[in-house]
Amino acid sequence: MRSFQELSVFFEQEVNKRFFPEEPKNLYDAAQYIIGIGGKRVRPILVLMGNEIFGEVGQDAFKVAASIELFHNFSLIHDDIMDKAPLRRGAETVHIRYGESTALLAGDVMLVRAYEEIASINASSLHSIFTLFNRTAKEVCEGQQMDMDFENREEVLQDEYLQMITLKTSVLLAASLQMGAILGGADEVDQAHLYDFGKNLGIAFQLQDDYLDAFGDPDKFGKQVGGDIIANKKTFLLIHALENANSQMRNELIELLGNNEVDKVARVLQIFRACGVDQWANAQKEHFFNLAMNHLHALRVDEAKKKPLIDLAGFLIQRES
Amino acid sequence: MRSFQELSVFFEQEVNKRFFPEEPKNLYDAAQYIIGIGGKRVRPILVLMGNEIFGEVGQDAFKVAASIELFHNFSLIHDDIMDKAPLRRGAETVHIRYGESTALLAGDVMLVRAYEEIASINASSLHSIFTLFNRTAKEVCEGQQMDMDFENREEVLQDEYLQMITLKTSVLLAASLQMGAILGGADEVDQAHLYDFGKNLGIAFQLQDDYLDAFGDPDKFGKQVGGDIIANKKTFLLIHALENANSQMRNELIELLGNNEVDKVARVLQIFRACGVDQWANAQKEHFFNLAMNHLHALRVDEAKKKPLIDLAGFLIQRES
Repeated sequence: MRSFQELSVFFEQEVNKRFFPEEPKNLYDAAQYIIGIGGKRVRPILVLMGNEIFGEVGQDAFKVAASIELFHNFSLIHDDIMDKAPLRRGAETVHIRYGESTALLAGDVMLVRAYEEIASINASSLHSIFTLFNRTAKEVCEGQQMDMDFENREEVLQDEYLQMITLKTSVLLAASLQMGAILGGADEVDQAHLYDFGKNLGIAFQLQDDYLDAFGDPDKFGKQVGGDIIANKKTFLLIHALENANSQMRNELIELLGNNEVDKVARVLQIFRACGVDQWANAQKEHFFNLAMNHLHALRVDEAKKKPLIDLAGFLIQRES
Repeated sequence: MRSFQELSVFFEQEVNKRFFPEEPKNLYDAAQYIIGIGGKRVRPILVLMGNEIFGEVGQDAFKVAASIELFHNFSLIHDDIMDKAPLRRGAETVHIRYGESTALLAGDVMLVRAYEEIASINASSLHSIFTLFNRTAKEVCEGQQMDMDFENREEVLQDEYLQMITLKTSVLLAASLQMGAILGGADEVDQAHLYDFGKNLGIAFQLQDDYLDAFGDPDKFGKQVGGDIIANKKTFLLIHALENANSQMRNELIELLGNNEVDKVARVLQIFRACGVDQWANAQKEHFFNLAMNHLHALRVDEAKKKPLIDLAGFLIQRES
């Protein structure tokens, strides 16, 4: 069993190629550009890891891994247009560099290119991979729509928030693992365990991201701490605080959301702590992490084969216990 | 053999359903909306016609037809965003009605939905249909990019223009027919003839559209006559005029392109006529129409089976001879 880092080296060779024709130059340079600015390639490597648990990693796994990475980058280009984001991975976003129309079209052609990789795999796995890919792609779009809809809503329930992050983020991690398992010849029970491992790990990771945005160490956290608070994002933390604060703190919180005073972040964090949001968020993260690990344990393969995924989960989710 | 009109009735029943789940409502209502505002459904009916030449129209043909119509509507939503178009088929465009972000995402999810139809067809045709779909989808994106690139270029060559309209418009008509032929069990030679019939007919139709925009009868032509001239669109007519006018007329034409005086359309048309652009454009249309018909004649099936396509070609392309 190879580790994430070892498989990373292999995949990086695979992804370091031109995926697109030369012409029309604007279109394909824009598409190639975002592939080139990197990222951790977690999703495609999950395809390889999911495969390696059940069988030797063959050419189809690299094709599906490439397809997943192309899909992920398609969604980043379009999300960045919708969010009007200037930067991605520290570099200019595609629409800033190439214009919105070309970025939109580069996303489209990247999605088609992702399907080209799927179309090239062996007929024996084609239907199940293609079907799972389609379902997941729709869900990712649904998650992005929910995220946008939440911005315009007064109230968002915790369950709705969980559904949104599941669709927007987790199902692609889950499907990547399951596609690997399909290619490795896993049966449906083990496929489902691996899918649910990925899904719950993804939720834990997203909750951790929300937590770190508020309570993270500014020196260690890669982004501006308090960014979600400044932007009034309806994160799990804010939703919980609004649901659990007493009426005085709740009113203060609502008032703080309506302004942008210099001490906004500090005062919101104070209320978060007073409501126990920090401990609760950690407990939630732990809950979903444990759910993920339970599905990994239930997988009917040698424990040794699970080690790379256990290591990866431990690397992605920082735990205090 | 059923006519376009007869197959139209069948397909309209098929397309008059909800293709999408209920939630997230904004996303899926936006996607469903554009399907509902109609259109002639030429492309999906070409799938059915291509099929019926070679064999009975089965469920897979309706799935592929629906897929093609979904793909076409995906491209319309995204094109309308790029073109900032307020109207489509006389109704508000999706981005005007639902906002740009939701329209972008509705296009994305519609493309995925198109692939879902493909994924559901019989395994025996899946690979060839899927591969042709992917190639065509990429080409349509390339055509749209070329069209946008031309707007910012001083000079566009006739061959480049032909390539652009072929990719942007014709290949989808061609592929629709070929997909039908694949499902009907045609061999590769007949598939290619039907593809080339569709491709050349599409080019003839686009050239006719350019012609009618300039020389059409305002009472019969559905759009504003002279719209391309006002917008300085680099149509086949303008490209030919710039290449063939004498230096005095050429200079006058360039000067006219730089202004928007009230008599602009009339004066440009005068130059077009003086250069013989009208006759030349008609001859070009005739040329591509004849190429299309040659491929139809070469098809190795009973002449009677070709009649619906001959009728459709005659209906789409108005001819003087």
